[in-house]
Amino acid sequence: MTFRPRQVYDDALVIDGLSVCNWNSDAVFRQLRAGNFTAINATVSTWENFIQTMAHLTAWMRRFRERDDILQVKSTADIRAAKQQDRTGIILGFQNASPIENELDRLGLFLALGVRVIQLTYHETNLLGSGCWERNDAGLSNFGVDAVKEMNRLGILIDLSHVGPQTTLDAIEMSEKPVAITHANARSFCDHPRNKEEEALKRLAEKGGVVGATSYTPFLPNGYETTVEDFVDAIDDMVERIGIDHVAIGTDSTHDQPLEFWHFIASQQGTKFPSTFADGSIPYTEVSFQPKGMATLAEFPNVADGLANRGYNAGEITKLLGGNWIRLFEQVWNE
Amino acid sequence: MTFRPRQVYDDALVIDGLSVCNWNSDAVFRQLRAGNFTAINATVSTWENFIQTMAHLTAWMRRFRERDDILQVKSTADIRAAKQQDRTGIILGFQNASPIENELDRLGLFLALGVRVIQLTYHETNLLGSGCWERNDAGLSNFGVDAVKEMNRLGILIDLSHVGPQTTLDAIEMSEKPVAITHANARSFCDHPRNKEEEALKRLAEKGGVVGATSYTPFLPNGYETTVEDFVDAIDDMVERIGIDHVAIGTDSTHDQPLEFWHFIASQQGTKFPSTFADGSIPYTEVSFQPKGMATLAEFPNVADGLANRGYNAGEITKLLGGNWIRLFEQVWNE
Repeated sequence: MTFRPRQVYDDALVIDGLSVCNWNSDAVFRQLRAGNFTAINATVSTWENFIQTMAHLTAWMRRFRERDDILQVKSTADIRAAKQQDRTGIILGFQNASPIENELDRLGLFLALGVRVIQLTYHETNLLGSGCWERNDAGLSNFGVDAVKEMNRLGILIDLSHVGPQTTLDAIEMSEKPVAITHANARSFCDHPRNKEEEALKRLAEKGGVVGATSYTPFLPNGYETTVEDFVDAIDDMVERIGIDHVAIGTDSTHDQPLEFWHFIASQQGTKFPSTFADGSIPYTEVSFQPKGMATLAEFPNVADGLANRGYNAGEITKLLGGNWIRLFEQVWNE
Repeated sequence: MTFRPRQVYDDALVIDGLSVCNWNSDAVFRQLRAGNFTAINATVSTWENFIQTMAHLTAWMRRFRERDDILQVKSTADIRAAKQQDRTGIILGFQNASPIENELDRLGLFLALGVRVIQLTYHETNLLGSGCWERNDAGLSNFGVDAVKEMNRLGILIDLSHVGPQTTLDAIEMSEKPVAITHANARSFCDHPRNKEEEALKRLAEKGGVVGATSYTPFLPNGYETTVEDFVDAIDDMVERIGIDHVAIGTDSTHDQPLEFWHFIASQQGTKFPSTFADGSIPYTEVSFQPKGMATLAEFPNVADGLANRGYNAGEITKLLGGNWIRLFEQVWNE
């Protein structure tokens, strides 16, 4: 090896394509610094409506005022500034279009507050289309077609990770700008409803999009026993499918989230909690949702060693760690 | 003729399966009395969300306190009481499930406030399924399946008039209680996206449901030139298709509605108004949305003459004017 992977990591713009940690946890922000993340797409809302989301954004504005270790990212220049200043850049993102409710004009309102990534649907049906856990998916609705156009116009990155199969394909086809799957693996690599089908991955890449291979262990073949090396397999798999320029990382990190979080995200529409959780049979607070060797955010640099050991060179590692995200943001955000 | 149609009308429980008039118009309520309506399914909301709907319900509670000529209907006994007291029974109904937003428990809240009829979707996609103007329809969503179960359990009548074709069929199949199409004609009688397809009409009737043939002129073959006799053709057509016990009337009356109402109901999701309206090319406030001879609510008794002239006997006319609605309410409402 002609380079030191940790040096490559420390020089790189390291971007986590999706993080859904407990933002009220001081430890999370300290760990992000320990892991030397340059920026993260931080989930503001999953099932929340307009008012609930405004409360979350209010809390974010307070955090930006009060914390020295973070910096709000509204442009790629802000990401580079975060790197220079040794702070974690926070890209505000939604995992659902539910916050706009029935009003497309609210996309512009959220843009003004710094929201730069919106996933079209979350698990189930919303006014735009269907999610990956729905019984059926007819694709984008009339409102969804217009939402895609408006997000293109405003420069908000479209995320399709939790989106249903037909709605995913419709959005890829209809979007005039490249789109993202911020956190998912290939369905044929690990058969899970949250992993994406071949056609979607291929078409997304052909149109210039980026897929964040995810280290969230339930979406990997070895589940809770996953190691960093296993996660590198998933990255490798995605690179083989769609090419080195279209792959990045989205950890789907959930650090310090309480049991209530798991009930909420796994619920139907944010309100009906699955009966299977009532008996506590799924020990959410005990299992490891990140690979061994990446169990804490501080250990994330280990992924650079894993990639180097697998034969990736410094330039390739830099692309995978965040270079491809930056390129996509530059293409999509109006800056 | 061995009977006087006007006498049959005055003896009957006359129920309008769907009325969406301007409820701030005193004239509307006076006309309902002049027309001797026993009860109407009065639309509270079309695109409105929870808070907006609560404002409408607040206004209704005030009307019930302040007006002597109306009476809130929470049971079929209330409809009979309205008849006895010469008042108009008001059945509060939604034309969209949008007021519950993402929370099925709100069905029980609205039930407690007297809401007895809810249409699953309005024109487009909502969290339950798709509407009749959508580009696609995959049927009921997970949330929609549960909503049907909950409405069955609570005794809220399911209305499918504006619902998309697959969502309509899913709801008919999954509902354990008979359902309604409160205001639509047959698609093959008049080819319009708001009129219903043969399979839905047949299956609905087989399961004990009722269809309100509608006098709303855009859904009738002669459009704005429609006469009472033409409307009787539509009733006749529906009786031939699904039988005398499954047909009633839903006028879709829109009296005293201002131009803003038309823009709102024809909008995308209540927020995006069609550009075709901008130039005023559709003179909503000038054309007649009810047949000649039924142009005002006071003239509604003319429909009894029309039915008698077409050969319907007194018992049949009584069923069509409201008897079938009463039977359906008795089967569906928990009373």
